[in-house]
Amino acid sequence: MLTVEYDPLNGWNSPEIKPYGPLSLDPASTCFHYCPCVFEGMKAYMGPNGEPRLFRPELNLARLLRSAKRATLPDFDPDAVLALLKRLIAVEARWIPDKPCHSLYIRPTIIGTRPSIGVAPTDDYGMLYIILNPSAPFFLPGVGKPLSFLAVEDRVRAWPGGTGAYKMGGNYAPAFESQKEANRRGYDQNLWLIGENRQICEAGLMNFLVVVKREDGDVDVMTPELDGTILPGVTRQSILELADAHTAGRTTLPGLSPTMKIHTHERLLTMPEVRQWNADGTLLEVLACGTASIVVPLARVGFEGEDVVFKKYEDGYGPVGKALWQRLVDIQEGRFEWEGWSVPC
Amino acid sequence: MLTVEYDPLNGWNSPEIKPYGPLSLDPASTCFHYCPCVFEGMKAYMGPNGEPRLFRPELNLARLLRSAKRATLPDFDPDAVLALLKRLIAVEARWIPDKPCHSLYIRPTIIGTRPSIGVAPTDDYGMLYIILNPSAPFFLPGVGKPLSFLAVEDRVRAWPGGTGAYKMGGNYAPAFESQKEANRRGYDQNLWLIGENRQICEAGLMNFLVVVKREDGDVDVMTPELDGTILPGVTRQSILELADAHTAGRTTLPGLSPTMKIHTHERLLTMPEVRQWNADGTLLEVLACGTASIVVPLARVGFEGEDVVFKKYEDGYGPVGKALWQRLVDIQEGRFEWEGWSVPC
Repeated sequence: MLTVEYDPLNGWNSPEIKPYGPLSLDPASTCFHYCPCVFEGMKAYMGPNGEPRLFRPELNLARLLRSAKRATLPDFDPDAVLALLKRLIAVEARWIPDKPCHSLYIRPTIIGTRPSIGVAPTDDYGMLYIILNPSAPFFLPGVGKPLSFLAVEDRVRAWPGGTGAYKMGGNYAPAFESQKEANRRGYDQNLWLIGENRQICEAGLMNFLVVVKREDGDVDVMTPELDGTILPGVTRQSILELADAHTAGRTTLPGLSPTMKIHTHERLLTMPEVRQWNADGTLLEVLACGTASIVVPLARVGFEGEDVVFKKYEDGYGPVGKALWQRLVDIQEGRFEWEGWSVPC
Repeated sequence: MLTVEYDPLNGWNSPEIKPYGPLSLDPASTCFHYCPCVFEGMKAYMGPNGEPRLFRPELNLARLLRSAKRATLPDFDPDAVLALLKRLIAVEARWIPDKPCHSLYIRPTIIGTRPSIGVAPTDDYGMLYIILNPSAPFFLPGVGKPLSFLAVEDRVRAWPGGTGAYKMGGNYAPAFESQKEANRRGYDQNLWLIGENRQICEAGLMNFLVVVKREDGDVDVMTPELDGTILPGVTRQSILELADAHTAGRTTLPGLSPTMKIHTHERLLTMPEVRQWNADGTLLEVLACGTASIVVPLARVGFEGEDVVFKKYEDGYGPVGKALWQRLVDIQEGRFEWEGWSVPC
């Protein structure tokens, strides 16, 4: 693990890479009481020449900085943290599983550590640490089971003027009761809605996308817009950019025809709309995406007491989902070079 | 401090009262990442015969249990925790300052400690601990300066379907940026509004009350209703109950005439209404209340770019605020017996 502490006298102290072990913290530390706690999820992949690689790490570190500012945690230089992270991964590279689609999950975390129960910003005391965990693939085509989500109608994950767009720890515990309820009723995760029109937000751990057939034979890929209530996912952004590149003829996604256009839309998306497209037969694929899961297909969403059951495909994915998954994995594992997204450590 | 840990094998382990010192926690503990962290604020007072006393502790522990359930933390028996707390206070009674209006602040805290970064409920691993801190009075009549609040219009503290009614740590860090802004602009705290009608919620650390003159010569005491977006404060509840008891003739609040009726209302209260009553001259007193502050008068609220400046009184409080403050302090310090609210340890 890597740790570096911030205090009002020295600012950021010297970082340490040391064996994994417990943190020792004053029980009055702000993190336990007021939860100025922010984090990121990233992964290190083993490249074809045995060199560890990160995927668009600058996007995660920029988001970590935005989250830290929102929680009034100490400011930091994201380039300096990236340099530390690369060093950590280089030192610990033996923990990256050398198997396809496996990776080393990376959890950069910043917590407020001011030892005082006064309710006040905690930009004077903090700790940044990074822990690592070897991880197996979340979903593999032909092997994995498409996911099921339960739409949440009685609670909300985030709201305008809140912290839904930041990776703040306090966004997660409030979702646990709904998660238990979803699991008890046989669903994998929740799908968070907001407002009278039952606008789709995100899954809490993943962003949400639909692929819809157009009258001209092309497809629309639609995902909720970044209105402040959803996390601006790195995988979400990468998917939109790859789809746009395909449509612009700058690349051809695996298994798709170069003439098949994918039109991307970040827009308000409601659950009744999705249900209607499904009934019409125009809804081709429903996907969720995130760092841990990359891209996964959805089988169904429980909504208003019934399951909206989506189109099934042989190996779980429809063609668009599979093309995106394959291209992302190829970039992440260093087999396909694309715009500097895969960064050797 | 008192600590007691919960694990899946043993449930709640043996509680320990031990010297104040750091907690040692796995860096993957859920509390650092997903913030299943709940707490209470309570106080111990030195009674007239030198015996330590608590104020309505069963209300705080019932709320702690509700918060813990909302955060999917381990279940507990509030009576057992009250017994532990009384024992802790009896052991540490020398830390209760033996001066009027001073007390020993008590911070019961429960954090999730499952050592795993999997995003999941944490009802299997937790730690309950209680730390103590001698505290001076927040506000004294004739000495303290009435507070100023800055109304928040661009951000929201809580939302229907959220966790505003629970004392969850994750409610607090999102407020720190607005708190910095308030302090920078010369205000003590924020006043949280919600919705198009600019409905008043609470101050983040205190509930909000107004005293309004009626045409029949009585007064109305109004406070936002418990609609799920505000914390159900113990002091708030006690104030409403004392005012009702006065009006019912069951007691006479200090300094008030027994014939002066106080009509209590828990209702939707908007900032434009408060501004209008202030302009009309019917707004007599504006108060905030909480465990730390008991009851404090407000001097002004910054709203829509201007200060709404309230009626001034000689020693800070108007008559209703002062009567409530005096009676609460008398009950808390064991000089006035009222319905078992003050509990010897």
